[in-house]
Amino acid sequence: MERTRGLNLDYLAATSGEAKILLTLFIMLLSAKLMAELFERLRQPAVAGEILAGVIIGPSLLALAAPSEITDLLAEIGVIFLLFTVGLETKPASIFRVGKSAAIVAVLGVVAPFLFGWLLMKAWGSTGIEALFVGTAMVATSVGITARVLSGMGLLDAPTARIILGAAVIDDILGLLVLAMVSSAAAGSLNYLEILTTAALAIGFTVFVALVGAPVVTRMAPKVERLRSGEGMFIFGLVLCFGLSVAATYIGVAAIIGAFLAGMALAEAAEEAPRMHRQMSGVTEFLVPFFLVNIGMKLSLEVFRSSSVIILCVLVTLVAVATKLLGCGIGALNLGVRRAAQVGMGMVPRGEVGIIVAQIGLSLAVIGPELYGVVLFMAVATTVIAPPFLKLLYANEAAARGDIGPPDAGGIVTSDDLFKIA
Amino acid sequence: MERTRGLNLDYLAATSGEAKILLTLFIMLLSAKLMAELFERLRQPAVAGEILAGVIIGPSLLALAAPSEITDLLAEIGVIFLLFTVGLETKPASIFRVGKSAAIVAVLGVVAPFLFGWLLMKAWGSTGIEALFVGTAMVATSVGITARVLSGMGLLDAPTARIILGAAVIDDILGLLVLAMVSSAAAGSLNYLEILTTAALAIGFTVFVALVGAPVVTRMAPKVERLRSGEGMFIFGLVLCFGLSVAATYIGVAAIIGAFLAGMALAEAAEEAPRMHRQMSGVTEFLVPFFLVNIGMKLSLEVFRSSSVIILCVLVTLVAVATKLLGCGIGALNLGVRRAAQVGMGMVPRGEVGIIVAQIGLSLAVIGPELYGVVLFMAVATTVIAPPFLKLLYANEAAARGDIGPPDAGGIVTSDDLFKIA
Repeated sequence: MERTRGLNLDYLAATSGEAKILLTLFIMLLSAKLMAELFERLRQPAVAGEILAGVIIGPSLLALAAPSEITDLLAEIGVIFLLFTVGLETKPASIFRVGKSAAIVAVLGVVAPFLFGWLLMKAWGSTGIEALFVGTAMVATSVGITARVLSGMGLLDAPTARIILGAAVIDDILGLLVLAMVSSAAAGSLNYLEILTTAALAIGFTVFVALVGAPVVTRMAPKVERLRSGEGMFIFGLVLCFGLSVAATYIGVAAIIGAFLAGMALAEAAEEAPRMHRQMSGVTEFLVPFFLVNIGMKLSLEVFRSSSVIILCVLVTLVAVATKLLGCGIGALNLGVRRAAQVGMGMVPRGEVGIIVAQIGLSLAVIGPELYGVVLFMAVATTVIAPPFLKLLYANEAAARGDIGPPDAGGIVTSDDLFKIA
Repeated sequence: MERTRGLNLDYLAATSGEAKILLTLFIMLLSAKLMAELFERLRQPAVAGEILAGVIIGPSLLALAAPSEITDLLAEIGVIFLLFTVGLETKPASIFRVGKSAAIVAVLGVVAPFLFGWLLMKAWGSTGIEALFVGTAMVATSVGITARVLSGMGLLDAPTARIILGAAVIDDILGLLVLAMVSSAAAGSLNYLEILTTAALAIGFTVFVALVGAPVVTRMAPKVERLRSGEGMFIFGLVLCFGLSVAATYIGVAAIIGAFLAGMALAEAAEEAPRMHRQMSGVTEFLVPFFLVNIGMKLSLEVFRSSSVIILCVLVTLVAVATKLLGCGIGALNLGVRRAAQVGMGMVPRGEVGIIVAQIGLSLAVIGPELYGVVLFMAVATTVIAPPFLKLLYANEAAARGDIGPPDAGGIVTSDDLFKIA
């Protein structure tokens, strides 16, 4: 309100805030796409390139961009669309077919990392609550990364892919229950009633959408197609995706679970709507880079100056990989060793869920910046380590698939096109 | 940090912030699409329905959602994609062909509203600076609304549509110069050098992109298509759109001008890329409702309790309509009366630019909440009034177009599909 300074400058200042936000988004988008292209030329997963782009442009290195409320929101919308698209490829029937195997994989894959993560931290000399938080951060698989790799190979419908996706959904719900328990423990009291309520709601929500929602949506689809707006199915998909995401957060589970279930409910109907697939792929392709770059931007390289932090990073990452690989692998051993290894490796990436746990721990002052750095390192490292091994473990299936022709030969955009990885 | 209160609750509080934002976005999306469907069934433009959805859910009425930094950002990205999509339909050659007519239309369409707006406010008894701000808010046409109506009728390539689009680009640049001048005047000093610099940069930028950028992009397109990422053209389009939007804000003109020019530069190459068109249409269809609903949410109904405010609203709106209709119409009179009326009516909607001027005026304390309400009313009213008249004025062309088959018969998604309006 300093009239003497010249209002014209105030006007320019007002627009420069907007300019800065747009500049940040532009840098995130450009760096993500450049690194994705570079990594694909090096035959590495584009996902790792986009996360690394975030590390490079983020506050730790070039400081060209920084995470903010706004990048967090775009990242959140991005991961919602990513899981929605994954859900679109996942017909409920095929999850139910693997329900029992998936449940065993999920439970073993939650117990092993939590237990051994906690043991490692206790052995390292951490306090009990720190050990509990690190263990919790190691629990939940980030299904988006594995889904992106598998869909890039056109293998989302492989039997082990179904088990991984099913287990990751159950695993996410279990992970959030563990988090609720650990948060209660940090407060010095376990609120059993609240935990039971959340568990019941989460399980009920999932079963309801899968059993009741999907058939209803499939029956509604032809009517939606007839709406005047022309883009009926696409708009219906958007509304369902956001609606169930919101419902999930109000029930107390992550929004991405709602988005995944929304996609799953639409999966049958979406087969008849290639136009919607392509439009959805545009939104996903635009927004997912913000999710991946934002993860990278949050990694502070500062804490890695201490050699003890680096040793702990390596140990935690090793335990995180080994416990999912063995825990989930044992759960799937009846399928044979190679398939068990596929399932185990597919459950390794922690990605955003580990980071969310770390952020909550930090905001509650339960863990310090160093352990925060360790958990972020583990989350990013497991995410970067898994894709090359997954590609190796699935090489036979991909080759066999190649023989029967490309999966999008019908002109329909599958997430295969979405997530091209080499 | 109140450890005694139970950390578990803090955790829930953290997620409930995210839940609220997602809920707001969901309500905006759902209300926009419901109102769009309703308006189309009533044979009214969907645009008006989506703005009205914002008024209904906004703080004035149901208070289900409120404008915030985040809705503003999504609105901004939405209008950037809208103008980019419009640019994609606008080949530079066809703008140059109408360059002279467009320039005359733009200049007369800037002078008339500014002069008569200022006169009206002086006659009403406003202060000089209030009169200048209201006059400025009446200057710039919101090309998005008219483009949406015309593309909904498949008439973006009609000769008068080219003139309207060309004039709106010039008009936007002139409008921002007037705003810079008025802001200087409000500070009590005119910084001529700054105004000249902005003018020169803005004109140079436009001419450079149109003359140099478009041929370069057209030549680059085949290489981009060969990139490993698979979605080469779409990603290139995203990067170019954001890049030029950022460049525009740094030069001192609105980001949407950069987005429009980016689309225009890609227009030739995009003809060969129907896949990119469809993906872009997904992004636009998802984000544009946030732009329209956000405009509606900002309309405060509170100020309209005073009858003198209502009278002023009506007067300002009448002058806003009459001056564009007559000013621009006279500029296009050599095309015949009906085409001149098409051009004049096409320039009537003010939309976001008027609202931006009002917001700046309010933040500088140069205008009060009542005049702010009047300008918002004028911006929304001109936006709602124009589409039905446009549809009437273009009825003949639309009918003729209908005889030669639907414009998207080739399977390419034109913005026709994007912006279906009855």
